[in-house]
Amino acid sequence: MNALGKHVIAEFYECDYETINNHELVEDIMLKSVDLSGATTIKSVFHRFSPYGVSGVVVVSESHFAIHTWPEYGYCAVDVFTCGDLIDNQAALDYLKEKFGSKNVSVVEMKRGVLNLGVDLHHKPVGN
Amino acid sequence: MNALGKHVIAEFYECDYETINNHELVEDIMLKSVDLSGATTIKSVFHRFSPYGVSGVVVVSESHFAIHTWPEYGYCAVDVFTCGDLIDNQAALDYLKEKFGSKNVSVVEMKRGVLNLGVDLHHKPVGN
Repeated sequence: MNALGKHVIAEFYECDYETINNHELVEDIMLKSVDLSGATTIKSVFHRFSPYGVSGVVVVSESHFAIHTWPEYGYCAVDVFTCGDLIDNQAALDYLKEKFGSKNVSVVEMKRGVLNLGVDLHHKPVGN
Repeated sequence: MNALGKHVIAEFYECDYETINNHELVEDIMLKSVDLSGATTIKSVFHRFSPYGVSGVVVVSESHFAIHTWPEYGYCAVDVFTCGDLIDNQAALDYLKEKFGSKNVSVVEMKRGVLNLGVDLHHKPVGN
C-alpha cells in the first residue's frame, strides 16, 4: 500500500520525572533523536508549563516530531511523522526511551496519505 | 476509559491546490481553526517547501495542531491533539474541510495517555 508518510504514535510510560519536566533537556533530547533518525530539523518550538509539563514540536524536512509530557504521571506522548524510506524512526524511539528512562512503551504506526491516484507517489518532487 | 488527551488524525483529500500551497493562507486557516475549537495558541511554526508544499505546527495550551500539505496530490495530513473536555475538535475540522475545499475527509480519533494509576487524571493541575 503506497503512502506518502509514516506516523509513529508512541506512549512512553514510567519515565523519569526530572528529565521530562526539564524543557531544555526535553528539547535537546528531541533534537538529538531527529539527528539520529536521519531527519533534518527546520525549526523547533518548545514550551514549559507551570508548575510542570513540557510541549514541543520539531518541524523537519520530512514532517514533524512532537512531544507532550506529564511528569506528574511519568508519561510522554510522542509523535514521529516522517516521509520517505530513509528515516530510521526506530533509532529515534530507542534513544527517547533510554533518555526518558521509560520502563514501558507502546507504539502504533499508521500510514498517512494513502492515495489511489494511479501514479507513483513521491514524498518530494523527483530530482530534489 | 480515562485518558489525558484526544488525538484526531485527519486525511483531507481532493483539496484546492492554490489554497494548500499558500503557506500564509494555510497558517491563517490553521490558527483560525485553533480559535474555533476553543484552544489557545502558544506558538506556531510554518514552513514552505520548494517548489510546493507546506508544513506547520501550532503548539497550543492543550497540545498541538499540525499540518503537512502535498498540493500536487491535493492532500493534507492534519493532526489535532487536545486535552480536556472543553475543546471542540469538530468545529476545527469542519472549518478546515471548508477552507481547503476538501471533497473527501477520513478521520481517526485516538485516546492518548490512557493511564491506570488508580487516581483521577487531570490534563492540567487541579485549580489551574
